[in-house]
Amino acid sequence: MLSTLIELQRLKRLDRTGWTLRGLANGTESVAAHSFGVSVTAMLLADRCTAAGVTVDLEKLLRIALLHDWAETRVGDMPRTATLYFGSDARKQAETAAFADIVNPVDANGSYANLYDDYERRKSLEARLVKAADVLDLLIQALALERAGARGLDEFWEVAEKPGFNLEGAAEQVVLELLQSILKARSELQPNV
Amino acid sequence: MLSTLIELQRLKRLDRTGWTLRGLANGTESVAAHSFGVSVTAMLLADRCTAAGVTVDLEKLLRIALLHDWAETRVGDMPRTATLYFGSDARKQAETAAFADIVNPVDANGSYANLYDDYERRKSLEARLVKAADVLDLLIQALALERAGARGLDEFWEVAEKPGFNLEGAAEQVVLELLQSILKARSELQPNV
Amino acid sequence: MLSTLIELQRLKRLDRTGWTLRGLANGTESVAAHSFGVSVTAMLLADRCTAAGVTVDLEKLLRIALLHDWAETRVGDMPRTATLYFGSDARKQAETAAFADIVNPVDANGSYANLYDDYERRKSLEARLVKAADVLDLLIQALALERAGARGLDEFWEVAEKPGFNLEGAAEQVVLELLQSILKARSELQPNV
Amino acid sequence: MLSTLIELQRLKRLDRTGWTLRGLANGTESVAAHSFGVSVTAMLLADRCTAAGVTVDLEKLLRIALLHDWAETRVGDMPRTATLYFGSDARKQAETAAFADIVNPVDANGSYANLYDDYERRKSLEARLVKAADVLDLLIQALALERAGARGLDEFWEVAEKPGFNLEGAAEQVVLELLQSILKARSELQPNV
Amino acid sequence: MLSTLIELQRLKRLDRTGWTLRGLANGTESVAAHSFGVSVTAMLLADRCTAAGVTVDLEKLLRIALLHDWAETRVGDMPRTATLYFGSDARKQAETAAFADIVNPVDANGSYANLYDDYERRKSLEARLVKAADVLDLLIQALALERAGARGLDEFWEVAEKPGFNLEGAAEQVVLELLQSILKARSELQPNV
Amino acid sequence: MLSTLIELQRLKRLDRTGWTLRGLANGTESVAAHSFGVSVTAMLLADRCTAAGVTVDLEKLLRIALLHDWAETRVGDMPRTATLYFGSDARKQAETAAFADIVNPVDANGSYANLYDDYERRKSLEARLVKAADVLDLLIQALALERAGARGLDEFWEVAEKPGFNLEGAAEQVVLELLQSILKARSELQPNV
Repeated sequence: MLSTLIELQRLKRLDRTGWTLRGLANGTESVAAHSFGVSVTAMLLADRCTAAGVTVDLEKLLRIALLHDWAETRVGDMPRTATLYFGSDARKQAETAAFADIVNPVDANGSYANLYDDYERRKSLEARLVKAADVLDLLIQALALERAGARGLDEFWEVAEKPGFNLEGAAEQVVLELLQSILKARSELQPNV
Repeated sequence: MLSTLIELQRLKRLDRTGWTLRGLANGTESVAAHSFGVSVTAMLLADRCTAAGVTVDLEKLLRIALLHDWAETRVGDMPRTATLYFGSDARKQAETAAFADIVNPVDANGSYANLYDDYERRKSLEARLVKAADVLDLLIQALALERAGARGLDEFWEVAEKPGFNLEGAAEQVVLELLQSILKARSELQPNV
Repeated sequence: MLSTLIELQRLKRLDRTGWTLRGLANGTESVAAHSFGVSVTAMLLADRCTAAGVTVDLEKLLRIALLHDWAETRVGDMPRTATLYFGSDARKQAETAAFADIVNPVDANGSYANLYDDYERRKSLEARLVKAADVLDLLIQALALERAGARGLDEFWEVAEKPGFNLEGAAEQVVLELLQSILKARSELQPNV
Repeated sequence: MLSTLIELQRLKRLDRTGWTLRGLANGTESVAAHSFGVSVTAMLLADRCTAAGVTVDLEKLLRIALLHDWAETRVGDMPRTATLYFGSDARKQAETAAFADIVNPVDANGSYANLYDDYERRKSLEARLVKAADVLDLLIQALALERAGARGLDEFWEVAEKPGFNLEGAAEQVVLELLQSILKARSELQPNV
Repeated sequence: MLSTLIELQRLKRLDRTGWTLRGLANGTESVAAHSFGVSVTAMLLADRCTAAGVTVDLEKLLRIALLHDWAETRVGDMPRTATLYFGSDARKQAETAAFADIVNPVDANGSYANLYDDYERRKSLEARLVKAADVLDLLIQALALERAGARGLDEFWEVAEKPGFNLEGAAEQVVLELLQSILKARSELQPNV
Repeated sequence: MLSTLIELQRLKRLDRTGWTLRGLANGTESVAAHSFGVSVTAMLLADRCTAAGVTVDLEKLLRIALLHDWAETRVGDMPRTATLYFGSDARKQAETAAFADIVNPVDANGSYANLYDDYERRKSLEARLVKAADVLDLLIQALALERAGARGLDEFWEVAEKPGFNLEGAAEQVVLELLQSILKARSELQPNV
């Protein structure tokens, strides 16, 4: 178990390349910090879904949120453009193989691998909620950076136009509501004095 | 919900003061990254407990792990010595009040507050496992830093001598086993060439 | 003496949490760098007071300015909100106790402790001038950061509305004059091109 | 031309992931800084080759050294392990396509693309010398970091055992001589006092 | 050769003081990263000059670009104002002497020293093109930083008003064209939302 | 007064180049943080001198300590080697001129300039004590960094062999005592486990 945990420590220092490639300081956000943000966002979204009558398996949701970026210890935090050049199938295959090797010492019954596969294919509602949380945490981070003075992050906001969360009913409504409030908060940002 | 999530973004940048006070670089580990490490460690420990026949509520465990440090957005990451001067009761009260204010917009039924209270009092097995994961993630981070050349971190290792995890049976064994493997890995560190 | 000096080295790396909690980069300002700014600001203010006929004990003023944040090596740089949850009395007691332990090896006659107590109670004119310098250095740092592109720092400027420096006569005038020139410089900041 | 140059600015901030994944601070070495190191090392090696009677096209060599990592603005600095999971052919194809898109606005006659292709296939002596410089600059950086206290970098030194520079005659000798002096300097490092 | 290369590693970490003195984060741009930018800019400019019928010695140009800042390992990255106080002659003499000592182990025939002297006196067309690239890379970096939210960099743009590149004919046109496109891109920057 | 204070803010971010040139992380120590360390060290040394019967003008001492590095806002933190190439006279002249320009708006009667001149010539006991504190703070910082794992800092310790503090009697004894305790603490550092 220790070798897996030591390897995952690496995510605490690995920069999310989206920010540094746009000129923000090194250390703006680590992959581990992002995974934390995704997990928390997923939890709050799911609790609101539950309150709205949607059945969500919270344990499964949180497990997926926590492990969805583990492959980055071996593959790195590939910028969006990298996927264009490698193709998203190749990326999925590489990350799936990397994930399998990372969890190998602790995944006797293959349950982590199954959750990862679920996430990659967005099979379950839980997987789709985590993906939504992944996008929303990115936008909230972008908003927080813009509030602190950053700009030049417009590309990140394009995803908000056609999010493609592939959700329905109350779950979709909960997610879109948060998205709308993020967009509203952004529209209220004032130009620098 | 957005105001809570924006506030929690702050944990992504907040340094764990333990490292910077000992001369390591700013940005060594954020509170958010640590929370991720604790959550992952708790999940792996709990899965092993389950395999050993101990009943663990994984949903509850992961919720506690994710939220146990939220109060730091308002109280900061207080160094260990700060608790000595404030007293641990005052610290708990302050953090509990800060936590309540942070989750107020999303905690209609008080369930987050209850989980936090459980953690602070170490009432449930899940709370105690998260506390163990909190200590173990600290030690694994210290080990990773020492492998990268850091030293002067002996204080952190003192906790390993009398961990006081307050666990029993198979759960205790699972936790102590990980602790032992961390200590063994540390003992195998070679002096710098 | 060495143990005290080694402990104070820690302030050189400890981040002022006010900036990092608002999304600015780690390393924006250390507590030691702030103490330097406060000391220099206090010296310039006091020299202007002297020129205006106010008697200021410069030695006492500079000693207070240099030592007023030493307790942070043990208590950390608590964010403003932390004081709300702990109460300002508890904070003062904790910091006073921490300060006493830090200077213990070098303060045979209690003179450092007396200066710290003077500062905490704002007893002397010198203590009040240092407190004014503490606020003004914060505002000048905020101004410098805003000039470099930061925003989202409005909370810090609220203090400027009701500063409560508790000074009078020429001393008050000197301090308010600097405050006004800071506010004027801020009002002249242009929106980003 | 400006769009290409603006895109290449990104390499100035992009961390070499090899260091951060091993726990060294963000900002340890940027891709741009490494490219500078490779170019300089290649120049010094080539000048020594020339002095030893080997004909080297310096212009070609320096061009290759400067452009060999440009694809990383779009693909990122992939850790060594990433290549294992993607396969080195996929990686070469992706990087070649990214490179072509980056230089498209400035490469009317395809000469940059040809140089990149030469490098990727190690066709010319110049390409092989740049590859050798790429490895040697990595080792010199590792040595400099170890001199500054880093450790845990043993993986990087493994490459030194079977470098496979694919050079011959005087060129090989020049390169191996530098390699030997690096290894000798490393062997002389003392344990920390 | 190794001692020279180890010394030049220092440029990878040395901050360009122009940015940090204006409040941007440490690590914004290293001297090595800037040298990379200058070399690349010089190469693209020279290739366009060649296409326009100007004869440029690319090998010489790239050598000068790569070595023009080596003296900074010993003299540091002196801010512009430093030159005012030392006088530009004293600065040139100091840097020339430092450069000579740095390259001493690898410059048996004095060719590096000659190139440096050429650059310092702007004797050749190649030296003047590198100087132009030095200014243009600075402006492109400033533009990239402003796009990411920085401001307060107006001083750097003043140089653009009277660049004094001391070029003529097609070479001058190529350089001014890039300068114009930089200025145009800057004028299109929008105020922060 | 504001323009001077804004300019001095720059020292809060300006790296001491001694550390970064030796491969330590950016942000290891700012010039402002060092000035704080020198001021505090000078104060403690002077108080001990007073206790030993030596008359020290504390106000003067603290003023000199606070202002002794102000010229660096314009001249930068020149590495030790830079002085070799410029000559120490040229450096003093440049820094003196820079200092005069910085304080010009606040130094109607020339008293800051006089203190700076005193420091540069080491005329008074206070100036010599500040110089001793300047060296001792450097060594204590080096010691703290070595305790945290840094190495390769031997050059800095050479100064300890022939400090040349130019003090006498009890003042010399106080200073040498601190130096000895620093050297003793360093000799007790253990090799990394």
